[in-house]
Amino acid sequence: MRLRNVKGSREVMQSSEYVFADPKSMAGTWKDIFGNNNPIHIEIGMGKGMFITTLAMQNPNINYVGIEKYSSVLIRAVEKQNELALPNLKFIRMDAEGICDIFGKGEVDKIYLNFSDPWPKDRHAKRRLTSKEFFARYDKLLKADGEVHFKTDNRDLFDFSVEEVTNAGWKLKAVTYDLHNSDMNEGNIMTEYETKFSAEGKPINKLIANR
Amino acid sequence: MRLRNVKGSREVMQSSEYVFADPKSMAGTWKDIFGNNNPIHIEIGMGKGMFITTLAMQNPNINYVGIEKYSSVLIRAVEKQNELALPNLKFIRMDAEGICDIFGKGEVDKIYLNFSDPWPKDRHAKRRLTSKEFFARYDKLLKADGEVHFKTDNRDLFDFSVEEVTNAGWKLKAVTYDLHNSDMNEGNIMTEYETKFSAEGKPINKLIANR
Repeated sequence: MRLRNVKGSREVMQSSEYVFADPKSMAGTWKDIFGNNNPIHIEIGMGKGMFITTLAMQNPNINYVGIEKYSSVLIRAVEKQNELALPNLKFIRMDAEGICDIFGKGEVDKIYLNFSDPWPKDRHAKRRLTSKEFFARYDKLLKADGEVHFKTDNRDLFDFSVEEVTNAGWKLKAVTYDLHNSDMNEGNIMTEYETKFSAEGKPINKLIANR
Repeated sequence: MRLRNVKGSREVMQSSEYVFADPKSMAGTWKDIFGNNNPIHIEIGMGKGMFITTLAMQNPNINYVGIEKYSSVLIRAVEKQNELALPNLKFIRMDAEGICDIFGKGEVDKIYLNFSDPWPKDRHAKRRLTSKEFFARYDKLLKADGEVHFKTDNRDLFDFSVEEVTNAGWKLKAVTYDLHNSDMNEGNIMTEYETKFSAEGKPINKLIANR
């Protein structure tokens, strides 16, 4: 993703009640933060937040937490949420590697990964959000019947992910190499990238992993 | 597979106690045929039978049934078995589409599919042994915790199969795009094709599907 610096983005985020910047040890506190026991769905690498904001509007009885490393894109989601003021949507600015500090054991019901950074070099494989190292983290956060939903246009990353899910000892519940022409498309919410790639005629891959 | 006619193959098979040609309604009779209650593992499209014969030698407490449509290749397996006389190995000459006549509900513990015919034309997709139509058949034959093990060098067929397993409502327990360099290779028995393709440097794909 090409990033540009957005002037004043840190200041906007610091003054928003919807975003936590670089938090430590929030695990186990989400019921208090949202003030209810509703299920928690998270998106890691949420970018400008169109996907998770749409879900939060559609599903008021589910709590959503969006995680994004870069202020310059996260700011767009925060500005939007400052207007919408959805009670079931929060954001965290952080590197995903620290995610086990943020959520306790079994605290999360569903994880969304959309058009994640492919980290194409082999030596960076561990940084991919669908690496077995990340699935070991998800293993801690996710409820026993929880699911990981992953979409990408990048076929190499997708193939890596299919293999890595099973390397991690997880199972593939569903796989498609052309989401928009499959049964799995029902209820699909498009991301910014998905809209763009799909308009270019690129097929979108999706998998659902569970244990 | 290029086939040539092997003279006298029908006669050799008719006189062998190890092969059933075009049988009807054998479902539920395998305990009687083998004379024990051991698990039953089958290979559909066994060709010359090196894979299943090796397994039958290694695992005397498992019963093996090899299925092959073409006499000209099946004859090689039958000739070998006429020499070996393994009590836990039988063959059937038939088209796989009729497999539900041969095995009863839950009568089979494991299904092997090795280097199956890719049927590359879309209109022939239903004939592929990893189509959802075939998984619906396997659903009947296989025990609740039974598995389908599928190997191929054909990446297009493999990708179709990964998707189709989940289309059929099954799960992928394990996937690799390079079997011989993966953790899944332990205990792997090579087929005739596998030996050849592997020597040419082609990676072998494998998946394990269950419900």
